[in-house]
Order: sequence, then structure tokens, then C-alpha cells
Amino acid sequence: MEPGKPIAITMGDAAGIGPEIIAKAFRDAPDVTRGCFVVGDAPTLRRAAQLIRSEGEPGLPLAVLDSPAEALETPSNCLPLIQIQELNAPLPFGKIDAAAGRLAGRCVVWAAQAALRGEIAALVTAPLQKEALAAAGPPFDAFPGHTEMLQAEAAAFMGKSVADMPVRMMLANDELRTVLVSIHMSLREAVAAVTVGNVLQTLRITHASLAAALGRTPHIGVAGLNPHAGEGGLFGREEIEIIAPAIAQARSEGMEVQGPFAPDTVFMQARVKDGQPGAFDVVVAMYHDQGLIPVKYLGIEKGVNVTLGLPLVRTSPDHGTAFDIAGTGKADASSLIEAIRMARQLSR
Amino acid sequence: MEPGKPIAITMGDAAGIGPEIIAKAFRDAPDVTRGCFVVGDAPTLRRAAQLIRSEGEPGLPLAVLDSPAEALETPSNCLPLIQIQELNAPLPFGKIDAAAGRLAGRCVVWAAQAALRGEIAALVTAPLQKEALAAAGPPFDAFPGHTEMLQAEAAAFMGKSVADMPVRMMLANDELRTVLVSIHMSLREAVAAVTVGNVLQTLRITHASLAAALGRTPHIGVAGLNPHAGEGGLFGREEIEIIAPAIAQARSEGMEVQGPFAPDTVFMQARVKDGQPGAFDVVVAMYHDQGLIPVKYLGIEKGVNVTLGLPLVRTSPDHGTAFDIAGTGKADASSLIEAIRMARQLSR
Repeated sequence: MEPGKPIAITMGDAAGIGPEIIAKAFRDAPDVTRGCFVVGDAPTLRRAAQLIRSEGEPGLPLAVLDSPAEALETPSNCLPLIQIQELNAPLPFGKIDAAAGRLAGRCVVWAAQAALRGEIAALVTAPLQKEALAAAGPPFDAFPGHTEMLQAEAAAFMGKSVADMPVRMMLANDELRTVLVSIHMSLREAVAAVTVGNVLQTLRITHASLAAALGRTPHIGVAGLNPHAGEGGLFGREEIEIIAPAIAQARSEGMEVQGPFAPDTVFMQARVKDGQPGAFDVVVAMYHDQGLIPVKYLGIEKGVNVTLGLPLVRTSPDHGTAFDIAGTGKADASSLIEAIRMARQLSR
Repeated sequence: MEPGKPIAITMGDAAGIGPEIIAKAFRDAPDVTRGCFVVGDAPTLRRAAQLIRSEGEPGLPLAVLDSPAEALETPSNCLPLIQIQELNAPLPFGKIDAAAGRLAGRCVVWAAQAALRGEIAALVTAPLQKEALAAAGPPFDAFPGHTEMLQAEAAAFMGKSVADMPVRMMLANDELRTVLVSIHMSLREAVAAVTVGNVLQTLRITHASLAAALGRTPHIGVAGLNPHAGEGGLFGREEIEIIAPAIAQARSEGMEVQGPFAPDTVFMQARVKDGQPGAFDVVVAMYHDQGLIPVKYLGIEKGVNVTLGLPLVRTSPDHGTAFDIAGTGKADASSLIEAIRMARQLSR
């Protein structure tokens, strides 16, 4: 997408830490949030801005926008907002609430449609509460979370079925990017989900997304499934029968893919170290924890979640609504700030 | 074991990097190698000492010992050696050789027996070549590697069967210790190997070994098998049906064990960071790569392998014979030096 478009940040669940980390990001990282705006509810955001304000500090006034484009001209000492729906009353922190779920869902749908129409460069989603979304009723109760909502919006926009809109999760920080073949299933099921089709689809999605973001052919490293990548078939045959054929097919399609490599060293090899690029731009991991253990090992504050495969750019911080500390002003905005930075980089 | 006993370093395969990293360790880390001696072959070690010698530097003369105890009085500018067998001719580097395999095997058996008799505090094993061991003929060709040889020696010494001498692998560096429920099998088999018996046995071995090393009850964290530790049964039931009951049993036996925790964050929580201890002394990992990815992520130079469960202390560097660079003097001795340091710490 062309540069210069604004980036939307959806407010997330009003009873969680979303509003306050958004306010912190605008206050503490004005260079990162320049050209961004919030999609949400004015009273909730006003409360968040008040909550994080230290004595003697200037406040963070809301700037209510009529259109996303106005975000590009908003001065940096305020909180630009597209108003979606005014809540009847401020919601208590840390409580599951259908109204909060509905509002969070509406913000996401609004931002997804704006992104699909090309009015914004990307969307960054603050955390929502799955139970609140489920309590929100139709259409929101049909979706376990953000990703499925975005898939449905994108499929409707493109006139495709959701099945034809496959997505993959990328988790990234300053050092490492990893894309997962599967996510939320048991390890036993994840082993069974390592098929030529799933691995190849992951490679295609990874290649297309990273090529767009980097402006060049990405170097993809692929982890094996088994210890030592199977040690020539001694410790499992998936590398020989599934992963290598998928890689061969991807290479024949023009992708730059290497592997399968021993899972216990490929992430270390891909890691950016002392400013030196690693051996790969991204590592395709065969299951959830294989990829998430190394990304999270150095600290979760800077991990960013990216949904690949959709005709829009979407990132999110790698944490939830943290109901236990919502409203205390203690929540750390680092991951959200990184998510905004990553959204900008991916939508370049 | 009481302090003051010497530590044996077995030479490993004469055609690999073992001899040269041993010579480097004695040259570069005299504080660490104080009280250590090599079990091996004089001409091979003399060649290694010559190989790593820079012009103008003093050499590293061999000091051939009659008994381990003499190692405690050897001056630090030489290479103390218990001579096992003189090879007929210096072996070429990087070649699989039955004579090298036989010699490597004899060194290990000698050191294991010395440890079992209490003559040495620990053994540190330089890498051997499995193919050379297999080519060495009986009894060595019956053993895939060090661990099985040590198990057999220990079982014979204790008058037990090998089946009654279960071992577990610990991988450790400055930041993290992890003990693995299973190692060299496919991930599919590793999932099936997560049984109450195997997890409980791992906990018992971990507890006993770490209690001896730390001089107090170790704090053990246990990783789940599935993403999010199964998310209450949604992503797999092994946590509920297998891991939690094994932990409950271990606790009833007086061990300090917590978990199962989400695999993608438990290692980060256990990590020693900025000199601050982590949440656990050790993490029990459910399979090979779950534990090895985080230990290796920051670099493999300092990873140390420890065999737990035997009535002796054995550590080894976390790399192989590196036939491709053997004889060039390029091999990095860091992991061996760490292995010696760890052996001393564990045998305190």
C-alpha cells in the first residue's frame, strides 16, 4: 500500500487494558503513533487518558475525527479518534460485559472494512475479551477472536468463501520472525497437521506477505518437526516425506526456501544478533510452541502478532486484556508500540 | 562427593576436535582446569598441544600421571595425562577409524570406573564418533554413545540391570537448566512417551541430582505438552490426565514442583536475567526440542550436557567431533570449559 495512509488502532475491550495502553502509546511514543488514530468510544478513551496522567503533566485531549485522513494532520499531543458508538455508561474494569464485547467487535469490523477499501494502511488491534465477544450476540458470537472476524470480513469483501482465505500467524520481535503451520490445537493434532498442503500453504503465505513487506524475495528457513530434523529418518520421517517435498514445490514456484533444519538450532541461526542479520528473514515453524518458545524467550514485552494471508495488514500486541490490572495504569504499552511499528513496516 | 578430588576429561575421538579443545582448555582456562587430568593417548595429545601453539608462545608439555590424585599437584602450565593406550601411529584427522573408536571407548570405561570407585569427582567427556565406536568391535559396538556405556558400567558396578538405571539428559547454560522427558525419538513417539511413569521418573531424577548439586531442595518448573498447557483441556488432555497427576505424586513425595505451565513462557520465566535468579532452578521439558530450543537460542557455545540419574557426575560439551574442522585449531573450547565448570559445580 502506498505510504501516507493512516493506521487504525482498534480500542479492544473497554474493561481491559486496551484503552490505557493506547493512551500511553500516544503519550510516550509520538513518533511511532504519528498518523495513527483510534477506533473506539470517546468516554472510555477519555477515562484512559485521565487514568495514566501524572500530576502536573499535561493531559491528552481527544481529537474526534470525521475521516481517517484527518489523522495525518492531527497534532501529536492529542488522541485522535473515530467514534464508533458511545457506551451508555463507563464500564467497570475487569468485568466481562456484552456491551464491551459488541463495541470491541464493531471497532474491528469498521477498521477491517476501512482497510479493505484502502482508506487505511493497516490495523492494529488492542486485545478483546473472547467471553465478552461471545456474550455480544450476533454476528460477533460466531467468532472466537479477531482473526476469524477479519477472515470473514475479507472473504465477504473479496467475494470468496472463508475457506479460500487461509491465514497464518506470524510472531515477531526485533530479532526473529516466525510463522506457524498450526496454532491452537494439541501437539498430537499439530503433528498430524504437518501435511504437504499445510506446509506449502504456509510457505506461500509467508513468501507473499514478507515479499510485500521487505520489497524483495524473503529468505525462508524451515524447521523440521522431529529432533535433529529426523536424523535422516531415524527419528521420524515427516522431514523426508512431507516437509522436503513441500519445500521442493515452493522452490519450483520461485521461492527462496531452505530446510528442513534441526529445530533446536534454526531459530538461533535466524536471530538478528548485534545488528547482524540472521541466516533467514523468517523461520517457518511446524507447531505453536516450536516457534513461540524462541520468540518469547528474551521477553514477551516486544512480541508482536501478525496475521498473514489477508488482503490487509493487521498486527496486534502479544498479550490479552489483563483484566487483573486493567484500570490501574500499570499495563505496559511496549508490545502495542511494537505492533504499531511493525504495522507501519509491513504496509510500506 | 567430597571436594578436592580430581576431575577426569576423556579425550574423545582422536580424529576429531576433542584433543585440541582439551589442550585449549588447559592453556586458556587454567583456573577451570586446575585439578583436572586427561584420560587418553600421549602422542595424540602432544600433537593437539603442538597444533594450537602460536609462534613465540610457550608449549604445553604433557605430564604423564600414575594416578588421578597426582593431578591435584600438577602445575598449571602443562597437560596432565593418564595414559590409556598408545596408538600405533598418529591418526589422520576427520576420518572414521576403529582404533580411534576403541581408544575413545576405553577412556570412557576407565574414567567411569574411577568415578564409580570414588577416585575422581566427575568425568567430562570430549565428543566421540558413533560410527568409529561401532567399528571398534565388542564391547563398544553395543553402545550408541557415551550415555549407554556409562549406564552399563554403573549398572555392573551397582549390581543392577541397565533397566534399573534410568537416566535423563539435562542441558544447561549460565541462564537455564532443562531436563528432558525423552530425547532421540520422533515427535510423534515423544508425545506417546509422556506417561505418568516417565514424567514422574524425570521429576525424581531431576530432584535427586539437583538437590545434590545445589545442597537444597530444587525448585522444579514443569512445562506442559500442548499449547497454553492445553488451555484447560481444549488443546489436549495430557496436562490434566498425565502431567498434573505426576506432579501431584512428586509433591506428595516431598519435591518442590510446580506446573504444568504454558511451554512458550515457562523457559523465559525460569531464565536467570541480569544476575537475578529465575522462577525455577530447572524446567522439566516434555520433549527434546521444547527444552533445547531455549537453551540453544542465545548461542550453543556455552551449552553443557549433563547425564542425570547415574551414581557419578558426567558432563560433556554440547557438540560433536566436528570432523570438518578437526586439526585446524579453529575449534571453540568454550562449551568444554563450561562442561568442566559444571562438573565441578555438580560434584561439590
